[in-house]
Amino acid sequence: MRLFNKVAIIGTGLIGGSLALVIKKNGLAREVVGVARHKVSLDLALKMKAIDRGSLSLGIIKGADLIILATPIDLIISQRNRLLKIVSNDCIVTDVGSTKGKIVSFLEKDFKNYIGSHPLAGSEKRGIKNARRDIFKESVCILTPTKRTRKLALEKIKRLWLTAGARVILLSPEAHDNALSFTSHLAHIVAFSLINSIPSSLLKLSSGGLRDTTRIASSSPELWPSIFLTNAKNTLKAVAVFEKNLNKIKIAIRNNDKKSLTDILRQAQKKRTLIE
Amino acid sequence: MRLFNKVAIIGTGLIGGSLALVIKKNGLAREVVGVARHKVSLDLALKMKAIDRGSLSLGIIKGADLIILATPIDLIISQRNRLLKIVSNDCIVTDVGSTKGKIVSFLEKDFKNYIGSHPLAGSEKRGIKNARRDIFKESVCILTPTKRTRKLALEKIKRLWLTAGARVILLSPEAHDNALSFTSHLAHIVAFSLINSIPSSLLKLSSGGLRDTTRIASSSPELWPSIFLTNAKNTLKAVAVFEKNLNKIKIAIRNNDKKSLTDILRQAQKKRTLIE
Repeated sequence: MRLFNKVAIIGTGLIGGSLALVIKKNGLAREVVGVARHKVSLDLALKMKAIDRGSLSLGIIKGADLIILATPIDLIISQRNRLLKIVSNDCIVTDVGSTKGKIVSFLEKDFKNYIGSHPLAGSEKRGIKNARRDIFKESVCILTPTKRTRKLALEKIKRLWLTAGARVILLSPEAHDNALSFTSHLAHIVAFSLINSIPSSLLKLSSGGLRDTTRIASSSPELWPSIFLTNAKNTLKAVAVFEKNLNKIKIAIRNNDKKSLTDILRQAQKKRTLIE
Repeated sequence: MRLFNKVAIIGTGLIGGSLALVIKKNGLAREVVGVARHKVSLDLALKMKAIDRGSLSLGIIKGADLIILATPIDLIISQRNRLLKIVSNDCIVTDVGSTKGKIVSFLEKDFKNYIGSHPLAGSEKRGIKNARRDIFKESVCILTPTKRTRKLALEKIKRLWLTAGARVILLSPEAHDNALSFTSHLAHIVAFSLINSIPSSLLKLSSGGLRDTTRIASSSPELWPSIFLTNAKNTLKAVAVFEKNLNKIKIAIRNNDKKSLTDILRQAQKKRTLIE
């Protein structure tokens, strides 16, 4: 079912590349073009039939009726002036950035058919080589409409994510950033801090617990600083809540207070059942 | 290859039951008997052919030449006087407790052929229903000999774990408790605190990252308080190191310091590669 004529994906990495595969395999567009920083990414994207044509420069996106911004957050924000000169007024624009407040406030001023997307389907792995058209299956994709969002853009982008297999949830950019500061940004901060706290010589004594708890600590040092910094206020608030909970455990251990520890752990066990 | 005549497993749960299966399937003993608090556990252990006979009371262990203590830490410590009256002087004794300092200091006074074990192969799942003879395969099992440990006990228990498929590492009880306070106890405290910090209504917005990071937060509220409390000093020290690392990230976010964040995340990514 064709939704678009020409789709341009800027950043053919894990998310951009996977989305390109979804669009190609489902015939959602007549043509998919890709822009990347490295020729090797484009070559692989072509080989995987994720894109029809690729280029290292933005000129190739001319005439697109959907542009997907799938680069790191900094780049989404910094390249928008160059995009504005190429993109037609009617073009639908979305991004897949992990924070939404700043990005949405910039992009919705620039593009009249903009709607923000955030697929909760990444991984600590990166790059087109890890792209698969099924990575969005049974995941959640948050769309962040505002009062400026046009219905057509929302509907088409929603159809795109539903075709990818995602469950679509609508949140305001502010609600998104608050929610993700807890469910994602805090979890990453905790994982980074945990692995950095363990003496290297002891890591050979890891069990599956530590392995899982620190999996996302290998998330990209190129992507994540901007995520924290574009959601700094919420993230620091989430960290403060975490510190309170950590403190409760510390105090209970210090006081040899088995009852409080049991209560805290029961609460944790119960809450964890809400996750899957 | 027979190592023992009669093995008694006190606590036929996940670890005790899995070890019973290893012993039975490899013919390491003429007979395996089990003690549990609930008849349903014994019935299942019998059905799974993990044990030859089971009982709710300790009398059944009489005549054993190997006793494996696989109950929660509190019970290991509190039941030892009753064991002393039943166990023969020559019997080899081991336990599978997650902390070693206190347990070893008690048990090596009571039993001349005692050696502590800690298989790093548990899971957030519990009970004989989750027991499998391959759970120790390619895992690490730490044995904690002291200057009182007899060579025969060490050698036989080492053979037992090697047969189970574990890689055996020897550490003093003190070195064990220090190491595990980082690689296991801290990771659990962090996971408990993390899940307790996330508003329940937001948990539906979890991605795979949060799911993995909090998997061990569903670990048993019956087992874990005693683990923390019998290793309180080391655990609090590990938490303090974690707080320092968390603070570095907080300060970098607060100062909008992308360079420091990138450095911290690079360190994390590099360290994480040492885990598997």
